[in-house]
Amino acid sequence: MHKLNKYIEHTLLKSDASAEEIEKLALDALKYDFFGVCININYINYIKQFLSGSDVKIVTVVNFPLANNTIDIIQFQTQKALDEGADEIDTVLNIAELKNKNYKKVVDDIKKTKEICKNHNLKVIIETDLLTKEEIVTASKCAIDGNADFVKTSTGFVKNGLGAKVEDVKLMYKTVKPYGLSVKASGGIKTTKQAIDLINAGASRLGTSSGVDIIQNI
Amino acid sequence: MHKLNKYIEHTLLKSDASAEEIEKLALDALKYDFFGVCININYINYIKQFLSGSDVKIVTVVNFPLANNTIDIIQFQTQKALDEGADEIDTVLNIAELKNKNYKKVVDDIKKTKEICKNHNLKVIIETDLLTKEEIVTASKCAIDGNADFVKTSTGFVKNGLGAKVEDVKLMYKTVKPYGLSVKASGGIKTTKQAIDLINAGASRLGTSSGVDIIQNI
Repeated sequence: MHKLNKYIEHTLLKSDASAEEIEKLALDALKYDFFGVCININYINYIKQFLSGSDVKIVTVVNFPLANNTIDIIQFQTQKALDEGADEIDTVLNIAELKNKNYKKVVDDIKKTKEICKNHNLKVIIETDLLTKEEIVTASKCAIDGNADFVKTSTGFVKNGLGAKVEDVKLMYKTVKPYGLSVKASGGIKTTKQAIDLINAGASRLGTSSGVDIIQNI
Repeated sequence: MHKLNKYIEHTLLKSDASAEEIEKLALDALKYDFFGVCININYINYIKQFLSGSDVKIVTVVNFPLANNTIDIIQFQTQKALDEGADEIDTVLNIAELKNKNYKKVVDDIKKTKEICKNHNLKVIIETDLLTKEEIVTASKCAIDGNADFVKTSTGFVKNGLGAKVEDVKLMYKTVKPYGLSVKASGGIKTTKQAIDLINAGASRLGTSSGVDIIQNI
């Protein structure tokens, strides 16, 4: 097991994040040697100056958080995110088409996003709060078929959503592990105990805005 | 005053909206003769079949709900939305840059979005739940300077957000009316009384998923 800090993607995705907050996020990521930061596309160019020369990765989100774009928009957005300097891309699965049982379209969107990502990791957020256990398995299988690198639990933006749950991470890990994919747990991760439980359930990344607290309370 | 139904943009923006729900939204919009529907871009092509030949408008959202895109992504997304068949575009103001007091950038993003919209209405969501009264005025002025057609209160996706408030609509209306812009109230509008109060405060559109209840309980 890596040290706990290397699991953490230090995350700030709220729409009113100020430049000052983004700078603090970067400096904390450097100080605690987190795996990376997870920020919105429109702050990549700003955060780069603080992280250059470090091995802290820049993770960003596309089609986020509502999965409400057509595939050509998603591809354009993904390319732009990489051009700006993103190392990894977290996208949201086409939840509406999953509900419509149009799995071909769900897989196709992921495939076409991965084509843009090339060797950059693509994580597929399946939004567990909106899915049944059966749909969690189906969504994970779509991520496998779409050539994604990770499945990820949550956007953190579902109303009254619980975010990452140990049982869901276990189910996702069991489904994707044989195919070489990994699991990112995200949403509502606030304590060191939660972080360790999620890692023990199979998560190899944690998306959280509480990374500093989690590390300080080991 | 128009009849109440003509104020309503019948709205369904959640990520897990099924095709069946979108069809029902369209049929209700026709039945009650609402001004329009407000849906995500990835359902425009589907909903068109139900609305063709009617005067129910298709409204969609870009840079929504987090205002987390760069301007070239927003422009691409707006053009795609229009190509798909959107009549009006609701975008989210660059809230981060408003907080950073980078008003030139905020105005510039709106201007460049309106350039794509041409004669289609552009509404600018200022997300009142995240702003002070002073910022509500500043954001409304940015919408004026950016050549927008409407200012709109809320995305409906702010955690614990209250959405459209009468006092905010009054303030927005007072600010933009002299410049010929209109106000759309949205977020948390559930009752007929709320709807009428917001119209009396200056709203000429209401974005709500409770349109049918509102009309039936006049």
